Amino acid sequence: MADQQRVLIIGGVATGPKTAARLKRLTPEADVTLIDRDSIVSYGACGLPYYVEGLFEDVNELINTPVGVPRNAMFFNKVKGFKVLTRTEALKIDRQAGTVRVRNLDSGEESDMPYDKLVIATGGYPFRPPIPGVDLKNVWFMTHPSHAESLVREIGAQGLKKAVLVGAGFIGIEMAEALIHRGVEVTIVEMMDQIMPGILDKDVATFAAKHLRQKGVRLVLGERVTGIGGTDRVTSVDTDKQSIETDLAVIAVGTRPNDALAREAGLSCMEQGGIVINEYCQTSDPDIYAGGDCVVNTYAGGAAGSQLFVALGSTANKHGRVIANHIAGSPTPFAGISCTGIVRAFDFSLGRTGLSEKQAKALNLDVETVTWAGPDMPHYIPGAGPFVIKMIASKRDRKLLGVQVAGMGNGAKRLDVAASMILMGGTLDDVANIDFGYAPPFSPPIDPLATCAHILTNKLDGLAKSISAFEARDRIEQGDVLLIDVRTPGEFEEMRLPYDVTHIPLGALRDKAASLPKDRDILAFCKVSMRGYEAQRILNAAGFDRVRFIEGGIVGWPFEVKMLKQ
Amino acid sequence: MADQQRVLIIGGVATGPKTAARLKRLTPEADVTLIDRDSIVSYGACGLPYYVEGLFEDVNELINTPVGVPRNAMFFNKVKGFKVLTRTEALKIDRQAGTVRVRNLDSGEESDMPYDKLVIATGGYPFRPPIPGVDLKNVWFMTHPSHAESLVREIGAQGLKKAVLVGAGFIGIEMAEALIHRGVEVTIVEMMDQIMPGILDKDVATFAAKHLRQKGVRLVLGERVTGIGGTDRVTSVDTDKQSIETDLAVIAVGTRPNDALAREAGLSCMEQGGIVINEYCQTSDPDIYAGGDCVVNTYAGGAAGSQLFVALGSTANKHGRVIANHIAGSPTPFAGISCTGIVRAFDFSLGRTGLSEKQAKALNLDVETVTWAGPDMPHYIPGAGPFVIKMIASKRDRKLLGVQVAGMGNGAKRLDVAASMILMGGTLDDVANIDFGYAPPFSPPIDPLATCAHILTNKLDGLAKSISAFEARDRIEQGDVLLIDVRTPGEFEEMRLPYDVTHIPLGALRDKAASLPKDRDILAFCKVSMRGYEAQRILNAAGFDRVRFIEGGIVGWPFEVKMLKQ
Repeated sequence: MADQQRVLIIGGVATGPKTAARLKRLTPEADVTLIDRDSIVSYGACGLPYYVEGLFEDVNELINTPVGVPRNAMFFNKVKGFKVLTRTEALKIDRQAGTVRVRNLDSGEESDMPYDKLVIATGGYPFRPPIPGVDLKNVWFMTHPSHAESLVREIGAQGLKKAVLVGAGFIGIEMAEALIHRGVEVTIVEMMDQIMPGILDKDVATFAAKHLRQKGVRLVLGERVTGIGGTDRVTSVDTDKQSIETDLAVIAVGTRPNDALAREAGLSCMEQGGIVINEYCQTSDPDIYAGGDCVVNTYAGGAAGSQLFVALGSTANKHGRVIANHIAGSPTPFAGISCTGIVRAFDFSLGRTGLSEKQAKALNLDVETVTWAGPDMPHYIPGAGPFVIKMIASKRDRKLLGVQVAGMGNGAKRLDVAASMILMGGTLDDVANIDFGYAPPFSPPIDPLATCAHILTNKLDGLAKSISAFEARDRIEQGDVLLIDVRTPGEFEEMRLPYDVTHIPLGALRDKAASLPKDRDILAFCKVSMRGYEAQRILNAAGFDRVRFIEGGIVGWPFEVKMLKQ
Repeated sequence: MADQQRVLIIGGVATGPKTAARLKRLTPEADVTLIDRDSIVSYGACGLPYYVEGLFEDVNELINTPVGVPRNAMFFNKVKGFKVLTRTEALKIDRQAGTVRVRNLDSGEESDMPYDKLVIATGGYPFRPPIPGVDLKNVWFMTHPSHAESLVREIGAQGLKKAVLVGAGFIGIEMAEALIHRGVEVTIVEMMDQIMPGILDKDVATFAAKHLRQKGVRLVLGERVTGIGGTDRVTSVDTDKQSIETDLAVIAVGTRPNDALAREAGLSCMEQGGIVINEYCQTSDPDIYAGGDCVVNTYAGGAAGSQLFVALGSTANKHGRVIANHIAGSPTPFAGISCTGIVRAFDFSLGRTGLSEKQAKALNLDVETVTWAGPDMPHYIPGAGPFVIKMIASKRDRKLLGVQVAGMGNGAKRLDVAASMILMGGTLDDVANIDFGYAPPFSPPIDPLATCAHILTNKLDGLAKSISAFEARDRIEQGDVLLIDVRTPGEFEEMRLPYDVTHIPLGALRDKAASLPKDRDILAFCKVSMRGYEAQRILNAAGFDRVRFIEGGIVGWPFEVKMLKQ
């Protein structure tokens, strides 16, 4: 590495400043300049919904350091030792000359900035659906502090009461909660027939959607938005099936990689968007790096395809470190991503890591899955939160492939553990062998993640025979199964599945087994289906073959249940 | 495996019922009998402090299932399909005959129970220190629901106001919080010069102790209890240095393995206690299994010695599954333990996984450590809790060896991730590469565990040069270092380290470096020492060699700080 090498960084939100700061710590002699067309840099875009929610008063919290120092050009120069030019747009990369044509957006002046190493960190941009009305007043894309600020301001100034959010991904869900906290009525319109498509499987998403509805979110699923109605300002969001009156709309239907500069410079990009990089974040030109939301990632687990577009600040920061290390001559390969994503939705945490069942099947992987439901702590600790975990494993080698969580329990903890195991190639036995930190305020003696691994192992061994809630509902509605509820009489008087049910408390099942038909399919369940599994084994031992338990039981049932008394 | 084989299980708290239930699910035809000398079985002993705290009213919650069904002999017979004999004591194992001599504690009758496979799950017993007075009234050992019940009853009936807890381990800490919630004044006496000896390193323990003191716990460390004073009931706990007046005492100075039966039967046991088992939980007699608190464990990480006594309900449950699987002919080896332990202490979570620095050094491992302090979420999310993480890695292969957590942040999550990585043999690079679930309500964009791995890597690469708070204090008090606080003026006016400090905000350091001496050792710090690290790099670049930053900064400082304004 040459001393005084000139490193030019385009883009100042996450990867850019991280690269620059790390590089100056590694090689203080490097000449590092970061340019951005915006007037602010290094802001916490992920915090926008929490500002809208009102968790903090000043949107500058997202720009300042934790101790209130603005992360502006002077800060980066004085504290981190690199130069920042804001309101400076990169127009064109000249790879032969090793320069970038830039324009000062205030003066209009253009010039060529030379580089020895170039870093493209141009991020993503929100997809603008090609429908009429997206430019109307009171239609927001939520990607910049100024958007959040104007949304909050206009809600107050205009007294906006109703919102339609287009898209039920991370930002749609976060904004739904934020706006409901602001007293705004919220409808989410999603083209797919579930929330968080591409993130959660439909069964987990359906379970989660129940909670959103309970919290007052109106969900319109499986409808395509055809236009935004209104003359000056939005008055409706129109789908292929209805027109929904509204005072404001937030469009969050995905992020696209901002790869135009790279593409024009002839760097390798994916046809559907995204700069292609190697494990050191080098583009097809080894002197040009790229990271953050403008690139495609590889999958760390090995099982999935290798070109994934997932826009996340956590990954952007990892890229920055990898780029700086490589420029400084201490290369550290990036392992790739595991597609981990999490969102808080009212009292629920929703997230996933690794592959979903849908993805795994699209990849022709032979997988087994299980959905577990239960509390995250012993029942005697107040505040134990029920949640569901869906776990996906490979049948061939029993490796953990993916985990999804939804519910009140501490799903984030289990997700991070699963992300670790997937990165390390762990099997179900490995998951069961983890020495989880156990004390009653933190978990039951057998951690739910270990329990999932146990059940999945039992399924693969032919010991546990289960049916998903979705499949169970179909079978029940077809009317060809005997449904056995093995809960206690007390539980049976509180709530039920809304179907014809035979109630046999588990403790009586051994004695009453003889009265049951052997020529019908039996579905057993309880509150969370641990007793349902026990019932299956008891009936198996009594000579019944056609018995399965309903995964997740009543707690994990994604559809409506019948409440008899509270 | 023979049909109808007779499996006899001695002990009914955790390993025993788990073995029996799993075995009956695997091989319904097996003849499984569990005996216990107690009148209750399968209770959640770990929940006792939470009953004392008043989190639930009825101690039977610890005996009942989550839906209120008592886990008694009838329950196990009806639901799980095995026989339970309570008030039945195992007197002697006759390995030649394949029988166990038992006594019915109600009738006094003795008989021989035959077995094909025997499971010893006799648990542990609380160590009774050989000092006078342990049998006085109002002295409790806290291992059985009846102990917790009588403690709560007597506090009310006698109006007990002061408690001395002997031993600052998990139970001592849990009971301190429980009793303070009950309005009782609490003093903990601990023979070692720190809380949680054998679990936490002294620096992390000292940081945690500050919180206990702030919550009103009086800590008497480094004093040996020589006797319990009083005639009928306890009136004092006496140490080698003082006599502490008290109304009640709880002794929790460790658990010992209940291995007498095994030892008398000639099974291999450790000299210091504990039945030796293989990875299938078989004792030296392959027809006799043992699990739970009566055995010694092996260390899963590979680095540590192989005979560890750690009594935990989570491990006991794992053993039960391993034993049942092996008896049923589907062996699954137990990976061993990673010494994970966690406890809630008021607003703090305290825990560790893997090796402590002290243990690692005792094993002659060449390790590097780092202590990090900071919040568990972005600063703009209310409720972000500061905590410290201490991370220990091997210098040779950079494998993660251990993690300790203390503080308000979600340390439990990071501990479980670390336990997973240690089990899988992960390196610091692996930890940094984990695709942690990122959203502001769950973590900063770079997870604290990844940050620790980064700093430790920087230390191993010679980039970061730091000093622990303990060593820093010694150097400061020797008076031979220049202490530079690089926080903002606003922070500097709020609180300080109580020493002569040169205050240079980080942003001014590049300009003011020339005024600093190059012939003195400089210690830089800030709130959490991220800026302290930056200061070290800035001064290094300016030609200073003798600079280190103080790990953890002011937030992680385990001693008193000077508060100027709140």
